[in-house]
Amino acid sequence: MNKLTVVGTVAFDCLETPFGKRDDVFGGSASFFSMSASYFTPVSLVAVVGKDFPDGFRKILEDRKIDLSGLEVTDGKTFRWKGKYSGDMNSAQTLETHLNVLETFSPRLGKNRDSEFVFLANVDPDIQGKVLDQVNGAAVKLSALDTMNYWIHTRKESLLKVLKRVGLLVINDAEARDLSGEHNLIRAARLIQKMGPSTIVLKKGEHGVLLFNRDDVFALPAYPLEKVFDPTGAGDTFAGGFMGYLAKTGDLGFENLKRAVSYGTVMASFAVEDFGLERLRTLDEAAIEDRLRKFRTIVSF
Amino acid sequence: MNKLTVVGTVAFDCLETPFGKRDDVFGGSASFFSMSASYFTPVSLVAVVGKDFPDGFRKILEDRKIDLSGLEVTDGKTFRWKGKYSGDMNSAQTLETHLNVLETFSPRLGKNRDSEFVFLANVDPDIQGKVLDQVNGAAVKLSALDTMNYWIHTRKESLLKVLKRVGLLVINDAEARDLSGEHNLIRAARLIQKMGPSTIVLKKGEHGVLLFNRDDVFALPAYPLEKVFDPTGAGDTFAGGFMGYLAKTGDLGFENLKRAVSYGTVMASFAVEDFGLERLRTLDEAAIEDRLRKFRTIVSF
Repeated sequence: MNKLTVVGTVAFDCLETPFGKRDDVFGGSASFFSMSASYFTPVSLVAVVGKDFPDGFRKILEDRKIDLSGLEVTDGKTFRWKGKYSGDMNSAQTLETHLNVLETFSPRLGKNRDSEFVFLANVDPDIQGKVLDQVNGAAVKLSALDTMNYWIHTRKESLLKVLKRVGLLVINDAEARDLSGEHNLIRAARLIQKMGPSTIVLKKGEHGVLLFNRDDVFALPAYPLEKVFDPTGAGDTFAGGFMGYLAKTGDLGFENLKRAVSYGTVMASFAVEDFGLERLRTLDEAAIEDRLRKFRTIVSF
Repeated sequence: MNKLTVVGTVAFDCLETPFGKRDDVFGGSASFFSMSASYFTPVSLVAVVGKDFPDGFRKILEDRKIDLSGLEVTDGKTFRWKGKYSGDMNSAQTLETHLNVLETFSPRLGKNRDSEFVFLANVDPDIQGKVLDQVNGAAVKLSALDTMNYWIHTRKESLLKVLKRVGLLVINDAEARDLSGEHNLIRAARLIQKMGPSTIVLKKGEHGVLLFNRDDVFALPAYPLEKVFDPTGAGDTFAGGFMGYLAKTGDLGFENLKRAVSYGTVMASFAVEDFGLERLRTLDEAAIEDRLRKFRTIVSF
């Protein structure tokens, strides 16, 4: 068991889906990631919230034994996002973003600097760089990064700098195409590997995941679901399961990376079955292993 | 070994891809299908060509021992299609279609009516129905259908009629959504099963295949290729490998259907590596088995 630290956001989400509307849902990249990872390994969450952050939300994380010593509470309001999903449920339309306390957030790792596994969820690459400055290089076994199109377009130079400093990048298909300038996803990943990270996890939403590790490639479909209730946080939940399993096992070999992708896929399939973190609260190891077994029969021949 | 008969088109294709232009390439659904299936089982091709159909093309099919007694040669010109692929290579833009001898084509099964396996490639569903009228019901083990959006929009009633008469449908994601009126592909396939075929093979191009057999589901990614040279015929090549393997083994159980999907995937991965039928001409069993082995390591965990 290695310690896993995630740096990202904690948020209030307002969601509109074909299945209903919900206000003030507990969300944010670090929340989904840490809830998912907590089923595998000890997790520390580094993020910022405002004074309006409710004890009830804090308790949800504490119930999963997530270390909140890095959760800064500051004057002001917690980050808010309002999004809407239409027919295809594949991508959200952002209706409102209120950065609030995020605007001046400068993450401090503190005692988490000795974490063996570090995940930098999608924030400004300059901030991701400042987090990497704090990481204890002698302790760390894997540092990984997520990003988004906004940073690729507005902060490319900063992003390229920080990419040179991590071993693994989690990115989706559209972002991989944007970052590499190449439409074919296999070639896109190969080009991004040359930018730094030797391992690329390329998420394709309902179409699954491609994993590139040095010269090796692994392809896995998504878990087939008849009903996607709320896709918010699916990517971060995937990353949490993936990184959580790697941290638990401490094995960065290709075969273990494959297994980590399968756990990430299973965790994401749970997350989308209910609003926000609801489904991730009520899981247990047996349910996870049971779905992994089902998934294995669905994808093996 | 069971006999497999395909009813479809034989064509001249004019192709524009990012890698070059080529005129008068040997194509057509029945050509790709039969070349692919010929690596697995005896194949009969039922189609029509004009007097302009060259001996050289006929020889390509004969070299693969494809039974051409059902290839009608009639006055007039062979079907011609001109298409263009741009950046993403995922879908062709049709520039020209000249039906020519196809306009009055009325397929005759003749001695092929005793085939155990029958594949009706994408043609007018009324014509597909007339072929099914000729099939010897006592001999046939599986009849399968392909279709396209054009028929879903213009001949829905005929299509629904013919769907009731086949055991298996091969369809792509956009077509499945159109036919079912449902965006979620799992639910779409479940709805289409209620229209007749208990087995649905749902092709997603570069994202692979979903297989639905009664209550079971199987998901397989595409073979990851860095270069897709010419995607023309990939779907028919997939169907040829899939049906060819089923006919060879005669086993319609779920586990064997899964293996058939993997062979179809491997055959399609070869087809797109060169123009037209070029790559399918030069294959051998060792190359197919070798790629299947590679594919297995790429998708298993």
